[in-house]
Amino acid sequence: MRELGRHILIEMYDCDPDVLNNLETIRTEMLEAAIVSGATIVGEVFHRFTPQGVSGAVVIAESHLSIHTWPEYGYAALDLFTCGDTVDPWVAFGYLAEKLQAGRTSQTEVKRGLFPTELGQARPYKNTPAQRSDC
Amino acid sequence: MRELGRHILIEMYDCDPDVLNNLETIRTEMLEAAIVSGATIVGEVFHRFTPQGVSGAVVIAESHLSIHTWPEYGYAALDLFTCGDTVDPWVAFGYLAEKLQAGRTSQTEVKRGLFPTELGQARPYKNTPAQRSDC
Repeated sequence: MRELGRHILIEMYDCDPDVLNNLETIRTEMLEAAIVSGATIVGEVFHRFTPQGVSGAVVIAESHLSIHTWPEYGYAALDLFTCGDTVDPWVAFGYLAEKLQAGRTSQTEVKRGLFPTELGQARPYKNTPAQRSDC
Repeated sequence: MRELGRHILIEMYDCDPDVLNNLETIRTEMLEAAIVSGATIVGEVFHRFTPQGVSGAVVIAESHLSIHTWPEYGYAALDLFTCGDTVDPWVAFGYLAEKLQAGRTSQTEVKRGLFPTELGQARPYKNTPAQRSDC
């Protein structure tokens, strides 16, 4: 079996509420987390809620990084999904845990896209190369 | 213990490769999946890769829906993350499995944001209401 990607689900508790509620800070740090982990950013979307909280996603060539914050609980839910071997999602995790000043975290890594055979033997699509350019 | 959200990780195999490779179709069906599940869309981002594949995310007031497709394997990785009780992520799952013509799926539901006490007892943030307007 081989997986196409790794998906890390992260709970960050006891974060700085002011950081969690700042749209520009969250956006900047999520983009920076993508960069420091070696990812290629291809798109982004962020939104601040009323009365509080920020949600957003950074789409990368290697999948995505997402975040949802609840400042009132000092809590953020993140998931860092990467495919290929060039990006290390744990680097992004370490970066964000520090920037959000998380007091406590828990994280689970899930393998995504499991195939019973070597990927090179998978069904080709219109005779294009068998791999996405970045994975 | 009470959770803030439900996060469903979905593997869709043996999908229609042409659907998986069509940016506009994927975008349209992801937005529609959000709507049929009762979510409120607050943002979106989609990208088509060369030579193939589409990635994207729909940020909703209740968290997010994301997708990454590998047409060459007939495979799509989705995750549907919702908070609150007004949105049913399984409705979005059923809708998308049909639209992507998935031959086989596997899915795992993960509880996100577990708190040991009732949420009403959590630390308040600047005296704002204890819940996001939509969750």
